[in-house]
Amino acid sequence: FSSFRVVLMPGDGIGPEVANSVVDIFDAAQVPISWVHADLINKSAKPGEDPFNRDTLCQIREHKIGLKGPTGTPIGGGHVSLNVHLRRELDLYANVRPCKTVPGVRTVYENVDLVTIRENTEGEYSGKEHEVIPGVIENLKIVSERACLRIARYAFDYCEKYGRSKVHAFHKASVMKMGDGLFLKKVREIAKLHPKVPYFEKNMDTGCGILVSNPSNFDVMVMPNLYGDIVSDVCAGLIGGLGLTPSANIGEEHAIFEAVHGSAPDIAGKNLANPTALLFSSIMMLKHLNLLEHAEKIEKAIHSVLVEGTVRTGDLGGRSKTTEYTKAIIDKI
Amino acid sequence: FSSFRVVLMPGDGIGPEVANSVVDIFDAAQVPISWVHADLINKSAKPGEDPFNRDTLCQIREHKIGLKGPTGTPIGGGHVSLNVHLRRELDLYANVRPCKTVPGVRTVYENVDLVTIRENTEGEYSGKEHEVIPGVIENLKIVSERACLRIARYAFDYCEKYGRSKVHAFHKASVMKMGDGLFLKKVREIAKLHPKVPYFEKNMDTGCGILVSNPSNFDVMVMPNLYGDIVSDVCAGLIGGLGLTPSANIGEEHAIFEAVHGSAPDIAGKNLANPTALLFSSIMMLKHLNLLEHAEKIEKAIHSVLVEGTVRTGDLGGRSKTTEYTKAIIDKI
Ligand SMILES: CC(C)[C@H](C(=O)O)[C@@H](O)C(=O)O
Ligand SMILES: CC(C)[C@H](C(=O)O)[C@@H](O)C(=O)O
Repeated sequence: FSSFRVVLMPGDGIGPEVANSVVDIFDAAQVPISWVHADLINKSAKPGEDPFNRDTLCQIREHKIGLKGPTGTPIGGGHVSLNVHLRRELDLYANVRPCKTVPGVRTVYENVDLVTIRENTEGEYSGKEHEVIPGVIENLKIVSERACLRIARYAFDYCEKYGRSKVHAFHKASVMKMGDGLFLKKVREIAKLHPKVPYFEKNMDTGCGILVSNPSNFDVMVMPNLYGDIVSDVCAGLIGGLGLTPSANIGEEHAIFEAVHGSAPDIAGKNLANPTALLFSSIMMLKHLNLLEHAEKIEKAIHSVLVEGTVRTGDLGGRSKTTEYTKAIIDKI
Repeated sequence: FSSFRVVLMPGDGIGPEVANSVVDIFDAAQVPISWVHADLINKSAKPGEDPFNRDTLCQIREHKIGLKGPTGTPIGGGHVSLNVHLRRELDLYANVRPCKTVPGVRTVYENVDLVTIRENTEGEYSGKEHEVIPGVIENLKIVSERACLRIARYAFDYCEKYGRSKVHAFHKASVMKMGDGLFLKKVREIAKLHPKVPYFEKNMDTGCGILVSNPSNFDVMVMPNLYGDIVSDVCAGLIGGLGLTPSANIGEEHAIFEAVHGSAPDIAGKNLANPTALLFSSIMMLKHLNLLEHAEKIEKAIHSVLVEGTVRTGDLGGRSKTTEYTKAIIDKI
């Protein structure tokens, strides 16, 4: 491959601005990627119709890799959110969210370095709900052996591949004895196949308590869907919020790298957005594509701009525009 | 009432030691309470039989109020944990967990003052699970209008009664549209009846992220069962852990005040346990019984021992025995 094709889905709100930042920086760094621009939303869909653009799905199926900006989440609407939709349709079973202290960004903890590996296809996200009698809703949490095994395998392989120190499974098997019990059983099976990787278990509640009092107790954490949704936000909170954290959705064949912060409609179009989360996600993507030199070059440039601290967007206490921050990074490349 | 009768359930491990501390301090403070000693575990139960002591339940039904020490949680066993069992049997629908920075105990966060109000009877704790096809577990999360309404009422009443500033509902209604959607709808109905109480909503994940980066954004937080389990541990983590946080399980007729930390079998019987969580729980109980002067007197005594800092148990970096710490508190009364 001399050049990769990546489907770029800018998303809503500040999405186009942060996506432009990535495109400009990749240009400057001469990354051998060509973008396939795609819209997530089918703008001609009528109310009640599926707002999701099926063509985009085809493009991702074809090119295998996507980079996705933020999308607003409709609450209580009839449709699942676009993120959840994509993950499910493409069977992107592993949601990987590293949270590492960002040089130059001060928070109450130093040297945080955590990775949440979240099962991304089932659990409470099954979407199966019904009213059993008037006023009573039943919501199905689905836990399958197959999904537990593959996320466990992913976590241990990740730990070995990236030279991390240990794996924790988060669960609530004392309450959900069969569901979370199955999860735990399958993770243990895989742990046995990796005797060199230290393996531990924590109740979800206890684990979250320790995360905020002593984050260095953890390294790689693997868990069911909803818990991962929560834990990854806790970890992000420890290092300065979702504006600084990357995420990857990995399947057997496809992968989507995604900024999971909100689409911030209030500042959209004003050149005020912080593109760092999408940039960090795009660096995960470069590593996934084995474009390690480009990944490092861009990462270093971002870090040095943040450490210098003179060019920062408003969310980090600065006054710089998105394009000024982008240019400062390009100047370091 | 000149004297209240309270069912005292010391629990396992360090339970008896921390319960003794409360008894001694209440004696010294001349609290008008007489204890009804009860065992949670039916020691003559054979393997496979219900280990729960039914007599204890009768005693709580009779005397209305219980104080409970820690109990170990069997993982993967056939029985629900004792805590969950008690809450369900007595329909203790509101689990109230205040987390306030403890004077003299330093953490990276200052001036934390949060209250988690957790629905305590349903949700993921329904215990309804089955294997639908081999290798696939379905776990039912139950959300009922009735339970949502009463926990919402409890939260807003609590906010007004204790002069707190606002209520946040935590939810994941963008994913569990019907279940968490129902919860949100019912909380909104109650919020409308309390127009003077500022009311906000947060996604569970986002809320947890903000809790660790900016806890002063919140005050009273109301939420479904599992989320409350997690959020209350996050809040506890912010102020130094479960060893310092009280909890109350409140029903229409009965209430149980409970230390929710572990039973620490490793240090049991060694006079090393920190009784503070059970003490703080017993202070919540005194307030509930309107014994406000006694509550204040004991609370002040504990605070001044912790602020002086010379008498502390090992978990807080000290070298004092449980009984030394207890005596130091008594000396301040
Ligand atoms: C927007 C929402 C449906 C989504 C999720 O719950 O997975 C988001 O919180 C995330 O973490 O990507
Ligand atoms: C022990 C466990 C079943 C219990 C719960 O999940 O409610 C505990 O974590 C708690 O918070 O009281």
